[in-house]
Amino acid sequence: MQYTIAEIASALGLEAVGDDTLMVTGVAEPSDARADQLAMAMKPEYAEGLSQGRARAAMLWGEADWQALGLEAAILAPRPRFALSALSGMMDPGQGYSAGIHPMSVVDPSAKLGENVAVGPFAVIGADVEIGDGSVIGPQVHVGWGTTIGAGALLHAGAKIGARCTIGDRFIAHFNAVVGNDGFSFVTPEASGVEKARESLGDQGEVKGQPWARIASLGGVTIGDDVEVGACAAIDRGTVRDTRIGDGTKIDNQVQVGHNTVVGRHTLLCGQVGIAGSATIGDFVVLAGQVGISDNICVGDNVICGGATVVLSSIPAGRVMLGYPATKMDQTLESYKALRRLPRLAREVAELRKSVSKDAPNG
Amino acid sequence: MQYTIAEIASALGLEAVGDDTLMVTGVAEPSDARADQLAMAMKPEYAEGLSQGRARAAMLWGEADWQALGLEAAILAPRPRFALSALSGMMDPGQGYSAGIHPMSVVDPSAKLGENVAVGPFAVIGADVEIGDGSVIGPQVHVGWGTTIGAGALLHAGAKIGARCTIGDRFIAHFNAVVGNDGFSFVTPEASGVEKARESLGDQGEVKGQPWARIASLGGVTIGDDVEVGACAAIDRGTVRDTRIGDGTKIDNQVQVGHNTVVGRHTLLCGQVGIAGSATIGDFVVLAGQVGISDNICVGDNVICGGATVVLSSIPAGRVMLGYPATKMDQTLESYKALRRLPRLAREVAELRKSVSKDAPNG
Amino acid sequence: MQYTIAEIASALGLEAVGDDTLMVTGVAEPSDARADQLAMAMKPEYAEGLSQGRARAAMLWGEADWQALGLEAAILAPRPRFALSALSGMMDPGQGYSAGIHPMSVVDPSAKLGENVAVGPFAVIGADVEIGDGSVIGPQVHVGWGTTIGAGALLHAGAKIGARCTIGDRFIAHFNAVVGNDGFSFVTPEASGVEKARESLGDQGEVKGQPWARIASLGGVTIGDDVEVGACAAIDRGTVRDTRIGDGTKIDNQVQVGHNTVVGRHTLLCGQVGIAGSATIGDFVVLAGQVGISDNICVGDNVICGGATVVLSSIPAGRVMLGYPATKMDQTLESYKALRRLPRLAREVAELRKSVSKDAPNG
Repeated sequence: MQYTIAEIASALGLEAVGDDTLMVTGVAEPSDARADQLAMAMKPEYAEGLSQGRARAAMLWGEADWQALGLEAAILAPRPRFALSALSGMMDPGQGYSAGIHPMSVVDPSAKLGENVAVGPFAVIGADVEIGDGSVIGPQVHVGWGTTIGAGALLHAGAKIGARCTIGDRFIAHFNAVVGNDGFSFVTPEASGVEKARESLGDQGEVKGQPWARIASLGGVTIGDDVEVGACAAIDRGTVRDTRIGDGTKIDNQVQVGHNTVVGRHTLLCGQVGIAGSATIGDFVVLAGQVGISDNICVGDNVICGGATVVLSSIPAGRVMLGYPATKMDQTLESYKALRRLPRLAREVAELRKSVSKDAPNG
Repeated sequence: MQYTIAEIASALGLEAVGDDTLMVTGVAEPSDARADQLAMAMKPEYAEGLSQGRARAAMLWGEADWQALGLEAAILAPRPRFALSALSGMMDPGQGYSAGIHPMSVVDPSAKLGENVAVGPFAVIGADVEIGDGSVIGPQVHVGWGTTIGAGALLHAGAKIGARCTIGDRFIAHFNAVVGNDGFSFVTPEASGVEKARESLGDQGEVKGQPWARIASLGGVTIGDDVEVGACAAIDRGTVRDTRIGDGTKIDNQVQVGHNTVVGRHTLLCGQVGIAGSATIGDFVVLAGQVGISDNICVGDNVICGGATVVLSSIPAGRVMLGYPATKMDQTLESYKALRRLPRLAREVAELRKSVSKDAPNG
Repeated sequence: MQYTIAEIASALGLEAVGDDTLMVTGVAEPSDARADQLAMAMKPEYAEGLSQGRARAAMLWGEADWQALGLEAAILAPRPRFALSALSGMMDPGQGYSAGIHPMSVVDPSAKLGENVAVGPFAVIGADVEIGDGSVIGPQVHVGWGTTIGAGALLHAGAKIGARCTIGDRFIAHFNAVVGNDGFSFVTPEASGVEKARESLGDQGEVKGQPWARIASLGGVTIGDDVEVGACAAIDRGTVRDTRIGDGTKIDNQVQVGHNTVVGRHTLLCGQVGIAGSATIGDFVVLAGQVGISDNICVGDNVICGGATVVLSSIPAGRVMLGYPATKMDQTLESYKALRRLPRLAREVAELRKSVSKDAPNG
């Protein structure tokens, strides 16, 4: 993999300056860069490292003075992280999974694989599966009975896709990701303490233990195009209809999406987010790491929840939330600031009470 | 898979009305239902969808007027979710794992498999393992040395069961579930900062870094009958004795149960619950999603903890808890309401102080 | 596996008392111990169980009166948990993975395996991989292209190590652990609502959904010596340079370490800890279960965070923290105590306001 500065700049739609015939074979941080690597010095503070490294060319911020930095060539990026997206895609050597169907895989004769589909060692492709052109099924992957996956998929080693799921194009499942496991759905013969405590907000009534009966998951999972599912994430299948994930939604490691939940388009679910069953998450939502969403609630479009926000009730579109329980971020920050001062406030009130009772006409 | 309405009603012990010879091949939401599917319209608000779908029969709530809904037949369920349990079990096509011992599996010659045990491709059954009749060991599963699993187990693709575990009947392990990994147990040569901070509630004394020595996990995991372990969940083995999970307990995705912990019977651990080492969790407990339980504490029978509750000290039986740190749910909700008003309260106190100091005799 | 009391005491550098030629084959809790097992009665309260069990020898606390306990021999341990470390290592029968290269594994011809490396069934070793002497690669493990692992590694069943990672000696990866999956890094063409909300602490400006462009992960993961990674944990690869984990650091189940993050030496990350991208965690840090660390912040050396602490800003070295958001543990405990009394405080302030307005000269 090697490119001239001109080739990269042209692929990224950005301006190259200096000797754009210079060849690079990869990218590096400024202070680590070899002479054949493009240094990533996308903010002025990172440019200081250039003198320690040996890069002859760098990707720089929009207004950078590349010559003053001692470079022979540069690419100027007004929004550098966005430029890094296309650049990193060009430079990614990937996991090196081999082409073709590995002889030590099991592909059911009824499965329909598109053109140039790779199936790695110890992978299992079930009956009636369909996989689109150019997809790469990594080692030790399982694709269950009757599942359809679109073109250009990349299923990393150990990913497990359950039966009767429907997945769009360019799907990525990271190591040991899970899609289409059974939902966690149990019911007691009579109303349980949980049902009563939820109604009363805290009182479970007469305490009476009952064993749990299992509700099987008859639905599957439907996933749109351009979706990623992170390492050790788990997307439950639905109970009657499918759990659904919209186009362009990205799901990070160890995220849980409960049964029947509907997640919209272009939404980010960051690491360890947990969404309980039958929730509805809108489009363009961002849930930061460890956010928790209760079952059966609705999170509107464009909502942003900060790290570890605990969402116990529905959120209107466009809100920015934080805290346990979730409130508007600015209010939450104000409340937490006040909470830190609360012990002092309590002392002040105690003094006031003393002083008022003393001052009172009948004190 | 097809059943008459009469067959289903009889299996569920419920009343069939209308033409109970009608045949259905599956279930669907009312608005999506085909003519050969049983619509799930178990609340009046779901019944509205019946006119959009083509179902001729439905499962309805107890007092539903099935004829007014234009149906030819119906099953009336006074507690519909409970009825769904048996119904969904009848209708579940499952993952379609094949029968028999797959030629590309590795079963140690010393392992004892019961009658009609299936072992999927790329599964590994270790030495001295015993597996009960009718169990299904899915693809890419690992069952370690000396482990015993009862009858009727279903281990989904990628599940890993460590050595020397003892598991009851009808065990279900979901995709990539883990049972019997080593506990997380480390110790420093001299008392660590953590030990001191726990005693003093906040002061770690003289700060002095020490490397950690590993404590191996000599115990296993003992699991009762009718237990499920979710996708990517992890149940640590014990240090000296076994970690224990009681009969009928259900464990959701990405749950962690620490070493030596004892979980009772018929307890629900919902998604992403984390239980640290040597905790004791009672019978009929429900821990909602993301609940955290500290090590060495005791959660009594019938306790319910709402979503993301952080339990730092023991909880008596029967309590309904919420919050960080856990307090009784009704108190927690009152405190959080007051917290939202706290910035205003602080302003009021400031005004009072001003006004009182003005009014005071010597003000 | 059997040892005399003298052999164990000598290996542990501790004092044996009584008949130190007595032979034991394992350890047990006092009340469960067979006659050939060493009872673990390392606190006075555990010694009560000795009379129920049949142990003839025990490991006891430093000043224990072993003869009064009816034992024939004992090992006296002034710091018993530390003694348990070496003892449990001697007594651990392990998972029983077989030696040699299993015929149903796939080892790329270019891979260099050291002496006595075991590769289990259905494991995959990619091109240009190097694995040090005596390492055990368990069943169904994947080691990606160009990765180097030191001597004495133990990779449990289902662990997945991505391409181009560099791992030191004595590495342990538990069941289904993941190292070297792609980072979760996405960017919008124009500034996103998240970027604006972070700057303004709550205002995302004009709401405008944009699809996310993927940033590939060109870096790997560099891991020092004596590191463990827990079941279903995930360590992201870096974007340009490697994500780094220092010597002696221990990572528990279901922990997430984000891309570019640097974790120091001898640090403990307990179960379900989540560390977002580009964070820096110092040496000798202890993050208890479910702790969350925001991206791009710095946690100093010797910091301790209690269970489920949510860290939204950097923490100086040596601090002991708790709460959401993280504050010093003693302050947090005081604030939470005050929070529980807050509804009462609010009522007191309301009464004061009434009484003051009545008492005021113009009241």
